[in-house]
Amino acid sequence: MSRPTPKYHPIATAYAQELVRNHQAATNIVLWSGWFCPFSQRTWIALEEMGLPYQYKEVNPYLKEEAFLAVSPKGLTPGLKVADKALHDSSIINEFLVESFESHGASLLPKDPYLRAQARLAIDFINKSVVPAYFRLLQAQPDNPTTQAEARREFTVALGIIAQQRKGKFFFGENISLVDIAIAPWAVRDFIAADYRGFQRDQVPSWGEWAKVLEQHPTVQKTSSDASQYVQFNGTFLKNEAHSSVGRAAQSGQAIP
Amino acid sequence: MSRPTPKYHPIATAYAQELVRNHQAATNIVLWSGWFCPFSQRTWIALEEMGLPYQYKEVNPYLKEEAFLAVSPKGLTPGLKVADKALHDSSIINEFLVESFESHGASLLPKDPYLRAQARLAIDFINKSVVPAYFRLLQAQPDNPTTQAEARREFTVALGIIAQQRKGKFFFGENISLVDIAIAPWAVRDFIAADYRGFQRDQVPSWGEWAKVLEQHPTVQKTSSDASQYVQFNGTFLKNEAHSSVGRAAQSGQAIP
Repeated sequence: MSRPTPKYHPIATAYAQELVRNHQAATNIVLWSGWFCPFSQRTWIALEEMGLPYQYKEVNPYLKEEAFLAVSPKGLTPGLKVADKALHDSSIINEFLVESFESHGASLLPKDPYLRAQARLAIDFINKSVVPAYFRLLQAQPDNPTTQAEARREFTVALGIIAQQRKGKFFFGENISLVDIAIAPWAVRDFIAADYRGFQRDQVPSWGEWAKVLEQHPTVQKTSSDASQYVQFNGTFLKNEAHSSVGRAAQSGQAIP
Repeated sequence: MSRPTPKYHPIATAYAQELVRNHQAATNIVLWSGWFCPFSQRTWIALEEMGLPYQYKEVNPYLKEEAFLAVSPKGLTPGLKVADKALHDSSIINEFLVESFESHGASLLPKDPYLRAQARLAIDFINKSVVPAYFRLLQAQPDNPTTQAEARREFTVALGIIAQQRKGKFFFGENISLVDIAIAPWAVRDFIAADYRGFQRDQVPSWGEWAKVLEQHPTVQKTSSDASQYVQFNGTFLKNEAHSSVGRAAQSGQAIP
């Protein structure tokens, strides 16, 4: 889970706000989520892809509410409850959903064991390489350009390694899978790295096309909030930043100041 | 994969040596393994539990043999090849084996999706908490008693957290599962932490009993080498000086020359 600043917007906005409104009624499946949290978005997308009925509960990461800690002992979003069964960790929750509701989630993981293993290797790579590199890049301050360039390179290389394994429109071809869902929240959020850290999509082999597919995908859009709220939420990472000059330089292809 | 010193024994000893001898004939399933490597032992145990025919190939970690890199691109053991399909990462290989050879591996993962998720959470915890704590403890030198005590505490706490979740003789009860297999190599190797780093089994709630079950389990014994060889192999961790350029490179995370 990302750590918010105390000033962050407390609820989802844009499309996601509407989706939250439509999922307030009590049901058997309860998603404990932070609208801002990319890991929550993974499970939210999976629930939407599978067309499962669920209740959305917004988690305030500052309040360690007992009801939430009972679901996710470390206090990390997302948490999931299905009847009396509680789970945490977005990757494990999503596999659980596919295995529990096979008729809904049949296409989210290949049936072939070797392709399933490929999916797990890919998700593991996203979790261990792409995601940490993204957060290191956001945290890399402009007053240390060498560190920032190294972080940018690391994120670019990691994204390229996974993007080049894509077999078609989505990771495995025609159908969205748990691999696409695992990386989709970063297709939604890589603009922050572009606007504030000089990251360029077109420098990552085949990422731009995949990212576009993902950010325009209906369940990804439906679970996304205002871009400006994501930026505000990441304020602790970006702080001390000369926002506008960096953003302009990055957009015009100039060297980052 | 652990990093060896140049002086390590090149092949398996004790029970494991006999098992290697009996698995030299070419078959459809090939295990690329280091006898010294706890991650290799996980897959080796799984193959034995499932009664699958396999060919054992010893990997020399100093030689980046092309044939091995074709199986495991990072050069880490274990690698598995089934016909023309190559895989790496012990946790992912073991799930693949269970899903591919269901009739053999039926009992190694529960059928119930929620219990499968519990298995994955437990294995993830072993990988992220228990295993790194073990290697940090071995690396903690006697001339820094505070660091060593902290590392010992960390390993003890992590082991206790997972051991206390055990439901019976094994993690899920009567049958050995992928969770037991994931931690078994450290039941075989925690004596090194005891002999050289002051670790005490009886200070970990319910670990001692579980560890005894695991180290006495037939497939664990069959895949284990001489205790003294494990100690010698871990020399670079246990001794204050890195013996060679290889040892130094390994410790600093650089490429092995």
